[in-house]
Amino acid sequence: MNRMRCRHCTEQAAINMRQHKLALCETHFVKWVQEQTRRSIEKYRMFGPDDRVLVAVSGGKDSLALWHILWSLGCQADGVYIDLGIDGDIGYSDQSRQCIEGFLQAFRLDAKLHIIGMRDTYGESLPEVARRTRRGRAKPCSTCGLIKRHEMNRLACEFGYTVLATGHNVDDEVAVLWGNTLHWQADYLARQSPVLPADRPGFVRKAKPLCRLYEREMAAYALISGIDYIYDECPFSAGATSLYYKEIFNEMERHSPGTKLKFYLDFLRAKKNGLFPPGQEEELEPCRECGQPTIANGMCAFCRLWEKRILPD
Amino acid sequence: MNRMRCRHCTEQAAINMRQHKLALCETHFVKWVQEQTRRSIEKYRMFGPDDRVLVAVSGGKDSLALWHILWSLGCQADGVYIDLGIDGDIGYSDQSRQCIEGFLQAFRLDAKLHIIGMRDTYGESLPEVARRTRRGRAKPCSTCGLIKRHEMNRLACEFGYTVLATGHNVDDEVAVLWGNTLHWQADYLARQSPVLPADRPGFVRKAKPLCRLYEREMAAYALISGIDYIYDECPFSAGATSLYYKEIFNEMERHSPGTKLKFYLDFLRAKKNGLFPPGQEEELEPCRECGQPTIANGMCAFCRLWEKRILPD
Repeated sequence: MNRMRCRHCTEQAAINMRQHKLALCETHFVKWVQEQTRRSIEKYRMFGPDDRVLVAVSGGKDSLALWHILWSLGCQADGVYIDLGIDGDIGYSDQSRQCIEGFLQAFRLDAKLHIIGMRDTYGESLPEVARRTRRGRAKPCSTCGLIKRHEMNRLACEFGYTVLATGHNVDDEVAVLWGNTLHWQADYLARQSPVLPADRPGFVRKAKPLCRLYEREMAAYALISGIDYIYDECPFSAGATSLYYKEIFNEMERHSPGTKLKFYLDFLRAKKNGLFPPGQEEELEPCRECGQPTIANGMCAFCRLWEKRILPD
Repeated sequence: MNRMRCRHCTEQAAINMRQHKLALCETHFVKWVQEQTRRSIEKYRMFGPDDRVLVAVSGGKDSLALWHILWSLGCQADGVYIDLGIDGDIGYSDQSRQCIEGFLQAFRLDAKLHIIGMRDTYGESLPEVARRTRRGRAKPCSTCGLIKRHEMNRLACEFGYTVLATGHNVDDEVAVLWGNTLHWQADYLARQSPVLPADRPGFVRKAKPLCRLYEREMAAYALISGIDYIYDECPFSAGATSLYYKEIFNEMERHSPGTKLKFYLDFLRAKKNGLFPPGQEEELEPCRECGQPTIANGMCAFCRLWEKRILPD
C-alpha cells in the first residue's frame, strides 16, 4: 500500500518521481508539471509573451497536455492537427481528431484548431502515399514525419505564427538521441535541441516545452487533469525502433532512476560546451512546387512524394 | 539441431556469428580469430616485428587467448600477472595464477611470465588496500584498475618492453564507451582508443588487439583451443556497472545483431573524423615516490594509496 505523502502538504502522494526523489499529491503534481514546463520555456528561450504559438496536436497525451499547460500558463496557443487518414472511418485518425475536439469542448479553450486533411488537400491519405511510394513502403514513420513537419511549418508560416510547439517528452528525446548516438551521427547530434531557431527564411521556430518531463509524468498529468486522449499507438508504429529504444531506457531507468534525464541533460551540457559544433549550413532555395526552403535542387522531399501522381481536380 | 555448415569447408559449423552472417567450423574459426587479431594490430598500428610485447594476463579467457593468438601469429610476447591476493589461499588470485602457469605448460610457450605479488611488493593485498583506504572502500574495481595500470606500466618500462597488450574485447570496450557516453564525458571519450601511443615519457604504448572481437567469440576460442581459464568473475565485480551495461548491450545485440560492434566502430570512425578532439594534455611530472608520470602535484594516485601506512621492513 502506498502511504507516501506529498512533499508539500499532508495529502497522499499521487506520484513518486524517483529520479527527483519527489512524491506529490495530485494538486501539487499538476502545478509542478506546469512550473517545470514554464522553466524549460524560459531556460531554453523558447518563446515569450509576444510570440504567437501554435501547438502540433495529435490527440495523444503529450500534445493535449502541452496545450492544456500552455493555457494554464497564460499562453493562448492555437492548435494544428494533420488528419493523415489512417485506418478508415472509425480508425486511428478519426478517433484522434475526436479526442482533440472533445478536449477543446471539455476545457472550453477559446483556441483555434487548424485541421489539414491529407486526403482533402492532396488527394491521398498517409497509408495511400505509403503504399504508392518507395520511401513510404520502406519507412512509413519517416514519411509521416516528413509530411507533418512540412505541413505544420507551412501552416504556421501562412498564418503568421512565430513558434511551433511539439509535445516531445524526455523519453522521445532520449530515443532519438540514442538512435543518433548508436551510429555517432555528428550532424544529427548537432541539430538535436529543445529549441530550433527560425534562423533561415521560410522556417518557423520549433520548441519542445516538455523535453525534461517523463512520458510517465505526462500520462499522469493527462489522467489527473481529466484529459481524454487516444491511448493506442499509431498502427504504423508497431515494431518501430524508437519504441524499442524506449524499452531499453525504461529498463535502465528502473535499474538507476534518473538515467534518461541525465543522459539528455548531460548531452545538452556537453553540446553547450562545444561538443558537436554545428556544421556548415547547407544553402537553401525555395522548392519550385511549394516554395518552402529545401536543399534539393528544385523540389523538396515532400513535393517529391506527389511527383509522379496526377492531382485530383 | 544445428545443421549449419562452415562457410569454408564441409564441416559442421562450431559457431555462427550473426553480426558477420558467418558460420565456421572449429579449425576455420580459430584461423579467423587469429586473422582478425592480426588485422586489428595492423589497422590500428599497434606494434610490428621490432616491438617487444608484454601481455597483461589475468588468467581469464581473453588475456590467455590473446597470448595464444600472439604466439600463433609469430609474436613471442612475454606476460605479466599481478597477484592481487584476492580471497586467500585457495581463492581467486591463486586459481588465476594456476591457470596461467598451466597455460604456459600446456602450450609449451617459451615465454617469460613476470609476477608481481601485491603483498610481497607492497605488504598489502588488494582487499586490504580496499578496506583501509577511502577510495578502495568506495570503488574497489577502480582501485584495482589503478594498481594494475601502475604496476604493469612500471614493469614494462623497467624491462624495456615497448608495448603492453591487454585482452579487452568489444564487449569491454562498449561497456566503457557506453558509460562515458551516458554522461557525455568528452575527455574520456577523446582518450578511448584501440591503441594509446607512448607519446609522453614514462609511458609504454598500450594496445587492445581483441577490440573488434566479441566476448562470446573469445570464450569459444579458448574452449576450442583447449585453454583452461578461470571462469568466475572476480568476487569484487558483483553488481559492477560494467557488467550491467554488458547485459543491456547483449539484449540489444539479440534484437539487432551487430549493434555492439557497430556502436564501437562508428565511434572510432566519428573520432577519426574529428569528433572529440584530444584536449590540451595536462603537464606531467615524475611522482616523488615512484618516478612514474603524474598530474598530481608531487605524488601519483597509486602512491597515495600507501601514503598513510607504515611500510614493512
